Amino acid sequence: MLSFSAIVEILGIIAFTISGTVSALHKKLDLFGVHIIGFITAIGGGTIRDILIGATPVSWMRDINTPVIILVTCVITIWLRHYVHYLKTTLLLFDALGLGLFAVIGIKKGLDAGLHPAICIALGTITGCFGGVLRDTLLKEIPVLFQKEIYATACIIGGLAYLACLQVVSVPVAESIAVIVVCSIRILAVKYQWKLPSL
Amino acid sequence: MLSFSAIVEILGIIAFTISGTVSALHKKLDLFGVHIIGFITAIGGGTIRDILIGATPVSWMRDINTPVIILVTCVITIWLRHYVHYLKTTLLLFDALGLGLFAVIGIKKGLDAGLHPAICIALGTITGCFGGVLRDTLLKEIPVLFQKEIYATACIIGGLAYLACLQVVSVPVAESIAVIVVCSIRILAVKYQWKLPSL
Amino acid sequence: MLSFSAIVEILGIIAFTISGTVSALHKKLDLFGVHIIGFITAIGGGTIRDILIGATPVSWMRDINTPVIILVTCVITIWLRHYVHYLKTTLLLFDALGLGLFAVIGIKKGLDAGLHPAICIALGTITGCFGGVLRDTLLKEIPVLFQKEIYATACIIGGLAYLACLQVVSVPVAESIAVIVVCSIRILAVKYQWKLPSL
Repeated sequence: MLSFSAIVEILGIIAFTISGTVSALHKKLDLFGVHIIGFITAIGGGTIRDILIGATPVSWMRDINTPVIILVTCVITIWLRHYVHYLKTTLLLFDALGLGLFAVIGIKKGLDAGLHPAICIALGTITGCFGGVLRDTLLKEIPVLFQKEIYATACIIGGLAYLACLQVVSVPVAESIAVIVVCSIRILAVKYQWKLPSL
Repeated sequence: MLSFSAIVEILGIIAFTISGTVSALHKKLDLFGVHIIGFITAIGGGTIRDILIGATPVSWMRDINTPVIILVTCVITIWLRHYVHYLKTTLLLFDALGLGLFAVIGIKKGLDAGLHPAICIALGTITGCFGGVLRDTLLKEIPVLFQKEIYATACIIGGLAYLACLQVVSVPVAESIAVIVVCSIRILAVKYQWKLPSL
Repeated sequence: MLSFSAIVEILGIIAFTISGTVSALHKKLDLFGVHIIGFITAIGGGTIRDILIGATPVSWMRDINTPVIILVTCVITIWLRHYVHYLKTTLLLFDALGLGLFAVIGIKKGLDAGLHPAICIALGTITGCFGGVLRDTLLKEIPVLFQKEIYATACIIGGLAYLACLQVVSVPVAESIAVIVVCSIRILAVKYQWKLPSL
């Protein structure tokens, strides 16, 4: 499981970096701005989680691999910026996988810190979703998360599935099920344009 | 005092949640977005305070009651959203009481951490006011706190009153006086439309 | 070096406070809003740095001198607001000196925390630049840092110079060189309107 989840996490970081970089390119930021938005989108959720539970220095500061992966991804995305939209389906898959794994990582960190299960699900959702919230806020948009995308809902349902599965199966199996649940809900939501009701 | 202040704190959380939820409803967010803005408005100030002084995991993660109260308040507010404006005066009272108690809680945490009295007043003001700053920033508004409302000024004057009273009366009496000061200034400011000068 | 760098840091704080206060004055905030934006611009970068590495309570809470300097600067800036633009060149010099010293302070805190050199440079850049990011976000602007100003680039090059110099000269000499590098790049960038390419 370890190496599988490590690979998926890297794919998730790459997908989130590309999503931030592409958003920044649309806003006509300069070269530095595009990198920093890509970076914040990728590590923002995990950083907020680490700050909230007091796990400092935050993760990306303790592991130089993450910043390197993000930097390389930014450079390649900028270089291939006119072709990125051909990869739409691939990106969606990575993004959904990343969302699922980030959510599970967040929940596990919460359980390790001895927090209430409901708080752990909140931490997982923050890990998966708040990089995008920071991206949108810095780019002067109302976060898409609050408006029409099924992101958080997927994390919450996947989190409930994870905690339920932990009662009956081993940790790696529960993790895999949770990632698949989050990922499937996210992909189906995009495919069938599911939305939460607006009030 | 304990049970009195606990009740007032709950009323304050409820009032802040309602204020965030109502703002979010005006922005046509989806169902998740409305809840999350209600949540952030209620716990944002205390969360920033805890992060600044290093009291992690932050308060709402250690006490499941707060998230439950917020969730229930959000659901009821959304359900009764067409009637909320009839409660304007009641809400103002809760909001002012909450502001006062949040300010006092913030100051006490600062004193416990051994910080300078002026810093403690700043912490109290952050606790009372910065949930609203986060709400406005996420909803793409310049925070109302910076523009025309007497919120922070009430917290600062109440904080000075608290520290002064501590020299001559017992802690619960000083707390009560501070809450009454903050609350009165806030209510009078709304009633008589007091504003700080704009430059 | 100590007293020199302490003086430069104070000048940097003053310059950053003035820059925040002047931005806030343009947005027609109230008296409190102007002060708070001045304050956040001056201490925002260092606060985010301290939170990321877990150095809490954050610096300005442990040293009452910083808030006092900021408050006095705000009051004077507001009082002399019609004359501030005559000081443009002086302010640019302070601002550039402050940027250089803030960047070096951030890098040193990272090295003290045992972080990777690349992460230390990121910390220095955050210390120098993110007060301005918070200022712009709260004033509902896309941060100028991401758009057209050579701020971060100056910090990164100065940081590289600092780490390189540390291999061959003493700490105070390396610090002075780094501050001069950041400062010169920033001043030249303003004078010759250098910009990073927009994509």
